Amino acid sequence: MTDMEAFIGGEYDVIVVGAGHAGCEAALASARLGMKTAVFSLNLDSIANMPCNPNIGGTAKGQLVREIDALGGQMGLSADATFIQSRILNRAKGPAIYSLRAQIDRRAYQQHMKHVLETQENLDVKQAEVTEILTEGKKVRGIRVLTGTVYLAKAVILTTGTYLKGRIIIGNTSYNSGPDGLFPANRLSDSLKALGIELMRFKTGTPARVNRRSIDFSKMEEQPGDPVITPFSFMHDEIKRDQVSCYLVHTNQETHRIIRENLHRSPLYGGEIKGVGPRYCPSIEDKIVRFADRESHQVFIEPMGLNTEEMYVQGMSTSMPEDVQIKMLRTLPGLENVSIMRPAYAIEYDCINPTQLKLSLEFKEIDGLFSAGQINGSSGYEEAAAQGIIAGINAALKLKGKEPLILDRSQAYIGVLIDDLVTKGTAEPYRMMTSRAEYRLWLRQDNADMRLTPIGREIGLVSDDRYERFLRKKEAIEAEMKRLKETVINPGEAVNRFLAEHGSAGLKTGIRLYDLLKRPEIEYEHLKALGYGAELSREVMEQVTISIKYEGYLNKQMQQIELFKRMEERRLPENIDYDSIKGLSTEARQKLGKLRPESLGQASRISGVSPSDISVLLVYLESLKREKEKNKGEHPQ
Amino acid sequence: MTDMEAFIGGEYDVIVVGAGHAGCEAALASARLGMKTAVFSLNLDSIANMPCNPNIGGTAKGQLVREIDALGGQMGLSADATFIQSRILNRAKGPAIYSLRAQIDRRAYQQHMKHVLETQENLDVKQAEVTEILTEGKKVRGIRVLTGTVYLAKAVILTTGTYLKGRIIIGNTSYNSGPDGLFPANRLSDSLKALGIELMRFKTGTPARVNRRSIDFSKMEEQPGDPVITPFSFMHDEIKRDQVSCYLVHTNQETHRIIRENLHRSPLYGGEIKGVGPRYCPSIEDKIVRFADRESHQVFIEPMGLNTEEMYVQGMSTSMPEDVQIKMLRTLPGLENVSIMRPAYAIEYDCINPTQLKLSLEFKEIDGLFSAGQINGSSGYEEAAAQGIIAGINAALKLKGKEPLILDRSQAYIGVLIDDLVTKGTAEPYRMMTSRAEYRLWLRQDNADMRLTPIGREIGLVSDDRYERFLRKKEAIEAEMKRLKETVINPGEAVNRFLAEHGSAGLKTGIRLYDLLKRPEIEYEHLKALGYGAELSREVMEQVTISIKYEGYLNKQMQQIELFKRMEERRLPENIDYDSIKGLSTEARQKLGKLRPESLGQASRISGVSPSDISVLLVYLESLKREKEKNKGEHPQ
Repeated sequence: MTDMEAFIGGEYDVIVVGAGHAGCEAALASARLGMKTAVFSLNLDSIANMPCNPNIGGTAKGQLVREIDALGGQMGLSADATFIQSRILNRAKGPAIYSLRAQIDRRAYQQHMKHVLETQENLDVKQAEVTEILTEGKKVRGIRVLTGTVYLAKAVILTTGTYLKGRIIIGNTSYNSGPDGLFPANRLSDSLKALGIELMRFKTGTPARVNRRSIDFSKMEEQPGDPVITPFSFMHDEIKRDQVSCYLVHTNQETHRIIRENLHRSPLYGGEIKGVGPRYCPSIEDKIVRFADRESHQVFIEPMGLNTEEMYVQGMSTSMPEDVQIKMLRTLPGLENVSIMRPAYAIEYDCINPTQLKLSLEFKEIDGLFSAGQINGSSGYEEAAAQGIIAGINAALKLKGKEPLILDRSQAYIGVLIDDLVTKGTAEPYRMMTSRAEYRLWLRQDNADMRLTPIGREIGLVSDDRYERFLRKKEAIEAEMKRLKETVINPGEAVNRFLAEHGSAGLKTGIRLYDLLKRPEIEYEHLKALGYGAELSREVMEQVTISIKYEGYLNKQMQQIELFKRMEERRLPENIDYDSIKGLSTEARQKLGKLRPESLGQASRISGVSPSDISVLLVYLESLKREKEKNKGEHPQ
Repeated sequence: MTDMEAFIGGEYDVIVVGAGHAGCEAALASARLGMKTAVFSLNLDSIANMPCNPNIGGTAKGQLVREIDALGGQMGLSADATFIQSRILNRAKGPAIYSLRAQIDRRAYQQHMKHVLETQENLDVKQAEVTEILTEGKKVRGIRVLTGTVYLAKAVILTTGTYLKGRIIIGNTSYNSGPDGLFPANRLSDSLKALGIELMRFKTGTPARVNRRSIDFSKMEEQPGDPVITPFSFMHDEIKRDQVSCYLVHTNQETHRIIRENLHRSPLYGGEIKGVGPRYCPSIEDKIVRFADRESHQVFIEPMGLNTEEMYVQGMSTSMPEDVQIKMLRTLPGLENVSIMRPAYAIEYDCINPTQLKLSLEFKEIDGLFSAGQINGSSGYEEAAAQGIIAGINAALKLKGKEPLILDRSQAYIGVLIDDLVTKGTAEPYRMMTSRAEYRLWLRQDNADMRLTPIGREIGLVSDDRYERFLRKKEAIEAEMKRLKETVINPGEAVNRFLAEHGSAGLKTGIRLYDLLKRPEIEYEHLKALGYGAELSREVMEQVTISIKYEGYLNKQMQQIELFKRMEERRLPENIDYDSIKGLSTEARQKLGKLRPESLGQASRISGVSPSDISVLLVYLESLKREKEKNKGEHPQ
């Protein structure tokens, strides 16, 4: 802080830089935990903007939204308030995989979230470009905005998304810009570099938005919403709402031909784009090149909201020149006369190498500076929001003098996400997937409240309302489990006929309802039909059924989790000198020294740290422990 | 058009550059008149944005909105759909002055207007920065956008608002930006200059937006909406809606002291701001300097919408540094703890000298290039929209080979506005006021449909619905006028007692209702009470009453209008050589040669052209006429 003459615009506990999906959750968590908080946005009209797809949730992402909600976050509540279509994906693949996904009215969501921020006690919402992070020594002190005004803070959370030195690329044209026709943040990167923070350059992209009036939907497959809507938030029982449809089409040989013939004009292959793009959300030209044998790719036409004709062309993300864009879109059935409202583009942006962070999302080297969302190398609104709530919580806990909240890989997808980013780093925009979670049968979307609401309550983020609701649900589950275990159904003609009709073996002796429900072919509805059901909410019925049906697998997973936990509990002292530990490989020594893992478990997940290195560390920890105990013995207090 | 290699993104009849209030009306008028039209915006989310005050209408401006509506425009319809408070201003000052003003839900208005554009037949809505106007010789051919794509058009309408080389100034900070945290258009100015267009630099400003939560309204005077709502659009009978309040406070000596003590830090007085600001919408520092003896100024606190806590601080526009902004706001009762969400700022921008335009709003020197709104040196959403609809109409009429629509000063405020800009030019952002209209008793908001709907119908912009509605109203007025003239009310005890009670002389003989209503103290409601009323709509009753009560004044005004019209009808040939006319003053010769007025009337309003110059022109026109007739006589056909 060189310039102490500056006007001090305010003094806060926590300042959040950016009001996208990470920033909103961070600011709300911090303010709800009693911290005097300010959140800054380049443009208050773009708070909680969805510059890419107009949906929330989906595989693994739906789980994240549920977890945010279970902790007392906002994304699920705002999504429930503004969705225009809701679907459970992969229902057939079992409860560990299936995820909720909703089409959102983009502008309604923005307005809803903005109003939540505006009305949040302890929270100031401000429009300004943050240009500098102010520090004293290695401790954060506040920020400076473009007008020169300084705002002091004890903690600062960076949630800059794709705005840092944002650069849009369409064909051979490129220009400085944030997403969606918005201003970039051109000045903050230099301040981060000056603080010694290592920056990376990533890119992402988005397809064109087209006018509904120019589409012939009769040539497409309609995708309606679910007849019964599953809400995101554990606070909502049931939502009845008129839904709109999406539409499915497929690319064809003509589409692929146009792309292949114009590959030399793609900035992706011509070298214009230097940032690394997301592997699991590739552009259409990338898909054509990487999956050259595929004859077709799915394309979904999705409404951007109720009061707009803008439609999103999911699957056709591209940075091709405009003439190629329009030509390739017009090869799709129903899009022969399509009119583009906003062209597709790629955007490059500065992000940080997330291995510079602790698991709390605080920078290892800068006290009080946190970072969350796309700036940490992730992609996706849900991934951003998940990091945002954790950063907001941990900034508040730090100022309260409490230990940070670190969810481990066995507790939440959020834990997997942050551990992956912080421990392994990422060479491309990171996307959450169910396959990344070792304990995904446990980390289900349906039990996120059981896993996380008690934690959110302990922190202070879960309201009385939510907690009472949670307790009622928990009690109902326990009561029903007890009843199912204690109630015996006896053989009889009617019972056995019913079972036979449903492909299930007849009873010879009495059987507990619990054991009957274990049968794969028997659902809770069948117990009801037999006169042995209870009046349960959908949620309780689901919990009970999954717990019983998957009991064996779940017990096995719990054993694995216990082993995992034991490794996580072996804490590595912060000031450990890896160079002094004999037996470690050189690579392990370097990486451990650089990344400074917080536990033996985290150390074991660093690439280049081998099982034998872990054994060496174990021995070392044991010797430390013995020494400590010895010292204790020698100096009794 | 140097680069014929460019990708042609589309071919249109009319292209509109900018989708603010001028651009929306221009695009809709053109498309509704059957022209294949495209409108380009830097950001589709900021279509029809209100970067300054969240209201539409007000003195003289309300009249403009009514006129736009009467012609078949959109602003009144969208305002009616989204207002949150409605008031008739200056009702006590008589029908020539009073105007409708509504608080608008800013984001709802944007969305409404955007959706109207998106669903308009013949209209494409596109997000892109237009960087170049393409011409062939002196004829417009299309535009080029930032990606290099070219769109061809037979006519182009510039409606760039305050975006051209926009530059925001707050204290000693300035940066390139459009209004409201949006991108500026940095590249188009150079293209306009290259076409030989003369640019000027104007500035305007806006006050801070503050959070409702930080205001103590108990210290302010509440300003509720009218109990009976008057709609803007002639299409709407009656609107029932819950309304929100505005609040009135006053600046005080402390406010003024802070401003005076910091005047040296004002970019307005420090030379940082070079653009010329609006005289009738000055910043607070300007008011303090110019009206040094005033002890207080009004400040209105106005909601920006229903779903936001943002409040607009009308009257506190400023470009002072942030610390001064917050200090001066906090001197206002109820704002002691106010929290600023967006700081006040001044914005400078390029606009054109409007004397380069014909009364049709087409450039004199560039065939097919039109210009409307703030780029023409005006200020205000309504002034912009009024020019927009005329430019849209005239672009369409031109392509149809028809004469342009030129409303003269006796027909509409729109005529006054355009004539003022084009004939007199403007040295500062031009704001419409009732005092600018010579015939304002005739140019009332209540009769805008009578004045303009038949014209809109003839052009083709007035729908069947609207026209039938208009005809029904007109017939009802005529029928009622006939009845009032033919029906006689006879003296009697009850009648005379009623009249006495209402301060009106008793009847001695029978009197026509028409004559009774002429009495200043008698209103239409009194005829009803006497049993002589008819069941009329509010609108018809209003028309009938005003026509009768102001008949004398109106007849006088009509005579003036006739004289005026005679001068306007004296057309000046386009290729007239003023240098060859003897007797003209040098100044008149230069100005007439440069501005090339279209009629003797227009010539008479050019500053520097004296009545004796007009006499010379009259003689010249007479001689031209005689010569023409002589030629006719000599060469009979």
